[in-house]
Amino acid sequence: MSGARLLDAVHHDGSEIFVEPGERALGDVVRVRIRVPLERPVRSVHLRSVVDGEPRLVAARLDSADEHERWYAADLELRNPVTSYRFLLDEPDGYRWLNGLGLHAREVTDAADFRLTVHGSAPAWAREAVVYQVFPDRFARSGAVRPAPDWAEPAEWDDEPRAVGRTGTQLYGGDLAGIEEHLDHLQRLGVDVLYLTPFFPSRSNHRYDATTFDHVDPLLGGDEALASLSRAVHARGMRIMGDLTTNHTGVGHEWFLAAQADRAGTEASFYHWTTTEPGYASWLGHRSLPTLDHTEPALAARLVEGPGSVVHRWLDEPYRLDGWRIDVANMTGRYGEVDVTRAVARAIRATMHDVRPDALLVSEHFHDATADLQGDGWHANMNYAGFARPVWGWLTPAGTSALAPGLPVPAARRDAAAMVQTMREVISAVPWSVAGNQWNLLGSHDTPRIATTVGGAELVEVGLGLLMTYPGTPMIFAGDELGATGSTGEHGRVTMPWEAPERWDRRTFDACRALIEVRRASRALREGGLRWAVVEPDAVVFLREVRDERVLVAVSRAPWDGAALPAHLAPTGTAEVLHGPALGVRPDGLHVPGDGPAVGIWRLA
Amino acid sequence: MSGARLLDAVHHDGSEIFVEPGERALGDVVRVRIRVPLERPVRSVHLRSVVDGEPRLVAARLDSADEHERWYAADLELRNPVTSYRFLLDEPDGYRWLNGLGLHAREVTDAADFRLTVHGSAPAWAREAVVYQVFPDRFARSGAVRPAPDWAEPAEWDDEPRAVGRTGTQLYGGDLAGIEEHLDHLQRLGVDVLYLTPFFPSRSNHRYDATTFDHVDPLLGGDEALASLSRAVHARGMRIMGDLTTNHTGVGHEWFLAAQADRAGTEASFYHWTTTEPGYASWLGHRSLPTLDHTEPALAARLVEGPGSVVHRWLDEPYRLDGWRIDVANMTGRYGEVDVTRAVARAIRATMHDVRPDALLVSEHFHDATADLQGDGWHANMNYAGFARPVWGWLTPAGTSALAPGLPVPAARRDAAAMVQTMREVISAVPWSVAGNQWNLLGSHDTPRIATTVGGAELVEVGLGLLMTYPGTPMIFAGDELGATGSTGEHGRVTMPWEAPERWDRRTFDACRALIEVRRASRALREGGLRWAVVEPDAVVFLREVRDERVLVAVSRAPWDGAALPAHLAPTGTAEVLHGPALGVRPDGLHVPGDGPAVGIWRLA
Repeated sequence: MSGARLLDAVHHDGSEIFVEPGERALGDVVRVRIRVPLERPVRSVHLRSVVDGEPRLVAARLDSADEHERWYAADLELRNPVTSYRFLLDEPDGYRWLNGLGLHAREVTDAADFRLTVHGSAPAWAREAVVYQVFPDRFARSGAVRPAPDWAEPAEWDDEPRAVGRTGTQLYGGDLAGIEEHLDHLQRLGVDVLYLTPFFPSRSNHRYDATTFDHVDPLLGGDEALASLSRAVHARGMRIMGDLTTNHTGVGHEWFLAAQADRAGTEASFYHWTTTEPGYASWLGHRSLPTLDHTEPALAARLVEGPGSVVHRWLDEPYRLDGWRIDVANMTGRYGEVDVTRAVARAIRATMHDVRPDALLVSEHFHDATADLQGDGWHANMNYAGFARPVWGWLTPAGTSALAPGLPVPAARRDAAAMVQTMREVISAVPWSVAGNQWNLLGSHDTPRIATTVGGAELVEVGLGLLMTYPGTPMIFAGDELGATGSTGEHGRVTMPWEAPERWDRRTFDACRALIEVRRASRALREGGLRWAVVEPDAVVFLREVRDERVLVAVSRAPWDGAALPAHLAPTGTAEVLHGPALGVRPDGLHVPGDGPAVGIWRLA
Repeated sequence: MSGARLLDAVHHDGSEIFVEPGERALGDVVRVRIRVPLERPVRSVHLRSVVDGEPRLVAARLDSADEHERWYAADLELRNPVTSYRFLLDEPDGYRWLNGLGLHAREVTDAADFRLTVHGSAPAWAREAVVYQVFPDRFARSGAVRPAPDWAEPAEWDDEPRAVGRTGTQLYGGDLAGIEEHLDHLQRLGVDVLYLTPFFPSRSNHRYDATTFDHVDPLLGGDEALASLSRAVHARGMRIMGDLTTNHTGVGHEWFLAAQADRAGTEASFYHWTTTEPGYASWLGHRSLPTLDHTEPALAARLVEGPGSVVHRWLDEPYRLDGWRIDVANMTGRYGEVDVTRAVARAIRATMHDVRPDALLVSEHFHDATADLQGDGWHANMNYAGFARPVWGWLTPAGTSALAPGLPVPAARRDAAAMVQTMREVISAVPWSVAGNQWNLLGSHDTPRIATTVGGAELVEVGLGLLMTYPGTPMIFAGDELGATGSTGEHGRVTMPWEAPERWDRRTFDACRALIEVRRASRALREGGLRWAVVEPDAVVFLREVRDERVLVAVSRAPWDGAALPAHLAPTGTAEVLHGPALGVRPDGLHVPGDGPAVGIWRLA
């Protein structure tokens, strides 16, 4: 068992033990703290913030100390909507900077500065939530008989979805009443937010090509089915979120039809017309998906702004959605010279806030969304870049023949140091109020199934261990809890095997349920800061801490050497097992066992 | 002599051998290339760019190959004003990303992506320039007798400037005619751009507290003296730049007086009025410097926009300034909720372009300016963050008692790895069109003198070696070439010892002149890319390359082991010494000698 360095012994993040909690306003002065182990020869600590573009340094004062560490505190003034800051530590062999990437014995740019914003964060319920993503065509059928539309190829419930080719037309016939009938399953699993991919009428099974935003697809049961599902969800104390495509409509959308019929009419201003084929801009060149022009005020009024807008309507009675996931948020409002994405995000959020002050706004940005996540627009993002991708890399089997999702090259197995560095890079680029609300995920309807990516239940459980213990809101794509497989996003859109219990992967379901339960029982896991303690190729160990709870997490993909941690992590020497193996609590400190693949979660006291 | 790894063997940057040169427009398709040494088992290369917010991957094609390396090329479409891109390399043990920070076997954010912009870069002359900064009160006196104003304490030419306390009132009496009389000195040194700190009337020797922007300070000789100096400078084929404070005026400025006299008048709208003492916002709380409100159109018309503006006027006849350095650019337009800095920068640039299409716009941002340097506003910045600070850290003597400039802690001696990492962090955050035009410097009127910082001429020469070989435009603060000393910015504002040739540090002058000459004789040093080859604690070795020239640079602060470089750096095996010791050219490759402190510059063929 090796003695492991505590990576983030000198530490600050935006969680409650470091930053006085609360909503902020311009002009506020907020007390921020930093912890420094006694072993570091720190002579003084200063807080550096950027005010109106210029750095300002203020001395931190010694706030408290014990036999292991000192805490320093300083006052941070919020003169600007987003205030960036870091700490300066004077040490005999040269000063250090502490920013979101750690401690640096060199000059750094402001890119990884901590950030505090006056923009409110996601509603409180979002931090407590575990989200369950449902792709309505594939979840459950109520049995209602509806004629298949002209574009559809009806599929049997047990048919394997196509992986490539004509994937959008296979119609399995899941509907909203089917979902309502299976809410028990969600509660048994322990999730409490139902996120539905689009329910608008369209000409595909995925419904990202809406033909109207005014109604629920009759194939799903129509408007009343959504109102009923929403009532049922809320009656159970759960919440429900919708999925809105703001970047484009379907080519069959009523706005686009009106625009084509009358190029001088209002709707014609909603689209980008071009002089080249097919005459309008479209999503990644798919002519079935004409792109919307968000510089147009008439579009804003119809889609995103005010009580008459689509954004507003579905949050109101009788549908009462608790929030929106915004499809292709990264391209919404970006076109050539134009970039109004952040303004659109702010407008959507303001509209939502007016109708439901506790509504949640989550963007889909598959890549680096950090520039759009400074707190003013999207509350959070589907965290592919900062969670799913690095975790996939760590859990990818050696010698896989799969392609890396979205890339024309084979997937690569990475050591934990690579995973952690990427995770830190993303967290360090956004305010903690965003980092703590990111929608972490192991997969979605747009990715291979996690069981396929990692090659089996054992490593799915490792992934779930990270998902339930990492800062942010976990999202599970329906079926992953049952071991669903699929080599592409389309191939993974499998139906739920309600009638074939023998196909349920009970081990994964039980692990998922148990880990959700651990999360629910621990405020530290939901709201705590994040300190990395050990990063070995096959294992990571980290701490999640709030004022009254300290949780240690060890996640490994293979057997490893284990690690001895400094004694000050467990002053009173007890460790309650919340999940996994026992933790060695010895006079010289904590000993994390070298089990693997394994997920260990312990409450320290 | 150790065999050194070539850090950036896989390489791309924005220089001409990697990116087809030329000005850009939206819609352009630009060929970009990457070099890959044969020893890397690369199976394919792709170019990833971000288009309207979404990544796009295109295959790169093999462009050329020799016995050492392969070059791949791909087409980059410029759909947006700034296009960010990086390269994907497929290798058997996992794909790599190449961005501005190097090669990564992990997922990365877009922050260090390469960037290509349709915004034009600095005028061509700026790349060829060596800038000489003159603080007019301290450079030279013409002998004209002028009564001292009420605020001034006349000083003798040889008085030591105060380091602290009342530093702004010591008036030495330098004037513009004095500068004109000493242009021979500039030409002897080899510089060709005269940058004057402010020449507007004020109530201080530094003149950053202007009382009007309409005239040249009579203490400097008035308007005609500037016109005469400009004529003389241009007659010698040199250029001249001014210094404009856009963030604030002096409290005695005619606008501020008018504003106070009539709070309903036009000028009152130029300032930020507050309900707390002293009733208006001011620079860092100095009530003598009221802050300007750049959201006010009337101010824009007076100061920055159009033919009537201050920005315009001084570039026109008879003054014909070749550009502006903008004081406190980082705070200009930033105040509380407001942040219009980039819009102000664009407006200033447009105004300048209208009167002089080849005018140069350089910002003063002492810290991380990268967010403001995306190509649309300031052409470049005074590169404290990306050059001066990291170089100071590397050349700071161990155990120095000096404070780190701008920080309340002692200066720290850093190894070259720290210096290089900081330099790369800054370069990787801006387009190459900016990086290649940054104003690099070893010091200015706002910093301790470089000779004091590094402790002597030997290391000043090392600093000058980096200054003349690093991408960007070198700027020398008058006096540094003569070994001027000073422990603070104010203390270092020493007069030029024209009458005391025995006080000239001839060694530094000769080194400076020689290094400028090397730079002038080498297009690679002025326009080439930058490949880091060796980074040892006491030495760095790098390459600057254009199509027809390849220059190797080795700079050391102390004796070191030297390094053997791969043979492919010098295919034909000759190395012309441009400066410093001989380079070992042996059958197995190049051998960089371990001299130190030393500056070696060699042209390879």
